[in-house]
Amino acid sequence: MSRRVLLSARPEGLPSDEHFEVEEVPEPEAGEDEIVVAVSHISLDPAMRGWMRDVPSYIPPVQIGEVMRAGAVGRVIASRHSGFAEGDHVHGGFGVTEHAVSDGKGVQKVDPGAAPLPTYLGALGLTGMTAYFGLLEVGRPEAGQTVVVSGAAGAVGGMVGQIAKLKGCRVVGIAGGEEKCAHVVEDLGFDACIDYKGGDVRKGLREHAPDRVDVYFDNVGNPILDTVLTHINRGARVVICGAISQYNADRMSGPANYMMLLVQRARMEGFVVFDYARRYGEAAQEIAAWMSDGSLVTKEDVVSGSVADFPTVLRRLFDGDNIGKLILEIA
Amino acid sequence: MSRRVLLSARPEGLPSDEHFEVEEVPEPEAGEDEIVVAVSHISLDPAMRGWMRDVPSYIPPVQIGEVMRAGAVGRVIASRHSGFAEGDHVHGGFGVTEHAVSDGKGVQKVDPGAAPLPTYLGALGLTGMTAYFGLLEVGRPEAGQTVVVSGAAGAVGGMVGQIAKLKGCRVVGIAGGEEKCAHVVEDLGFDACIDYKGGDVRKGLREHAPDRVDVYFDNVGNPILDTVLTHINRGARVVICGAISQYNADRMSGPANYMMLLVQRARMEGFVVFDYARRYGEAAQEIAAWMSDGSLVTKEDVVSGSVADFPTVLRRLFDGDNIGKLILEIA
Repeated sequence: MSRRVLLSARPEGLPSDEHFEVEEVPEPEAGEDEIVVAVSHISLDPAMRGWMRDVPSYIPPVQIGEVMRAGAVGRVIASRHSGFAEGDHVHGGFGVTEHAVSDGKGVQKVDPGAAPLPTYLGALGLTGMTAYFGLLEVGRPEAGQTVVVSGAAGAVGGMVGQIAKLKGCRVVGIAGGEEKCAHVVEDLGFDACIDYKGGDVRKGLREHAPDRVDVYFDNVGNPILDTVLTHINRGARVVICGAISQYNADRMSGPANYMMLLVQRARMEGFVVFDYARRYGEAAQEIAAWMSDGSLVTKEDVVSGSVADFPTVLRRLFDGDNIGKLILEIA
Repeated sequence: MSRRVLLSARPEGLPSDEHFEVEEVPEPEAGEDEIVVAVSHISLDPAMRGWMRDVPSYIPPVQIGEVMRAGAVGRVIASRHSGFAEGDHVHGGFGVTEHAVSDGKGVQKVDPGAAPLPTYLGALGLTGMTAYFGLLEVGRPEAGQTVVVSGAAGAVGGMVGQIAKLKGCRVVGIAGGEEKCAHVVEDLGFDACIDYKGGDVRKGLREHAPDRVDVYFDNVGNPILDTVLTHINRGARVVICGAISQYNADRMSGPANYMMLLVQRARMEGFVVFDYARRYGEAAQEIAAWMSDGSLVTKEDVVSGSVADFPTVLRRLFDGDNIGKLILEIA
């Protein structure tokens, strides 16, 4: 038998057990030109909260009764597909499930000898791609400029700041709590980190970004977005990657200080990482090189459990407990 | 004697007589390298409301006791400046005053034979420059795309839509009231106009912008900004030119739907027309050509009075009474 997690109800606020159903089904078999994957690691991402909403977005919502969408890695345990052999390790959108059947579309082989499997969900996966393209293509930082990143202890934020440092920028993180800020500065090498729970973000920006903010990479939304807007520089780029503080709110809050975009001739721009799919290889190569020479540190928060733990583990993203890339490892 | 209008108190809501003081002073004389200008026409602009606020912006606030800042045209009545002769007509930031002394910086000669004087405050002045550079340089519309403009019956909005039509776009205005919408469609040639007072903007967008919105030129702010965001197209550009609905509010309201920038990989960008000063000549030449072949219509709302009428006339901008470029003509 095989277990998988279905979305059973649309959450209003925080998602929890009551919004999911664990279904037990016979272990699937591979049809013609198909593979069966035994999933070993599931990626947990803030974006999942958006996929549960029944509103038009950059990707269709997960339907009630569907397996919850998730990126994952696993091992091919049966193959009737010419491109994959039993024993291959693969990455794909397999969902929150122990076993997935796939026709191979969107599935990539990964090499567990080159990097640990969780890394293919983190630095070398969509997390890394999001940080890389969001910062470099949308934020377009220049050496000597100041880059501010919220959610700095999160998977994407931590990489954004490190890549910005590699590009010669002054980098200031924003994160919640002393432990996270210590990680961001000491482990990841940011120039400074503002603890929004323990201090005043505006004061922190004045202190740590004295030349104002040239690139703000936003993972959290208001009220931090609104505060950073007051401190942007002429020609600044505000990269809209996420708004985790808003995902469980009844009503989104908009940045009341958006007229700072006019005052500072600045722009606020959103992106979706999938648009850069043809360039993932190029990014992964550069990220892997930074990792191997030690100039980019990756941090994974791997929780061991079963697919049934998915709702509980997902909550770590929204409760502020998580540092680094959150992954559910199927024990 | 000569009268001029000083800012005497900072308005909280709508500006009115109590925030200004009419001061009578001796008619000024020209010092060395100076001119004296008898002002004939004063430009009234939504941006003036921002200049009254004591907050950092793209230009310093008008100080209490200072002559209210304004663009104006007039005639040189005394000159000790080698660049100007008595009788020259000039444009400059003379303020709300009957007579201004100037050292000639930022003052341009204008030709009342080539265009009526009010046009140098409207289509050939900062209004025209704002529409031209905001639309073409920030909005970057392409032929066949859909451009939506709010404040469409206003001075800037009316020109933005006409320039977008000249560039081959489908153009939809948003304005308040049937009279304004009739002007926008019948006189200015927009494809359609949505009356936000008489109808549902979202429904209007679905009807008149069936291919969604590629460029939104915003003069008004929320709630219209928020509504248009729900209807933007992939890669849309939202040009932040103004937020007249917000200028007199206690608190600015931010666009809660800004995550549509992510969903649609779109950008929201502000600009300040002064940054294009070196290219004003180029723009004026093109606008003048469109005017002379009849492909661009200008509309001025000239109110005849004295400088003391400034607060009352200014209110026309915020009360929704004004169509076209609002000008106070000094009788």
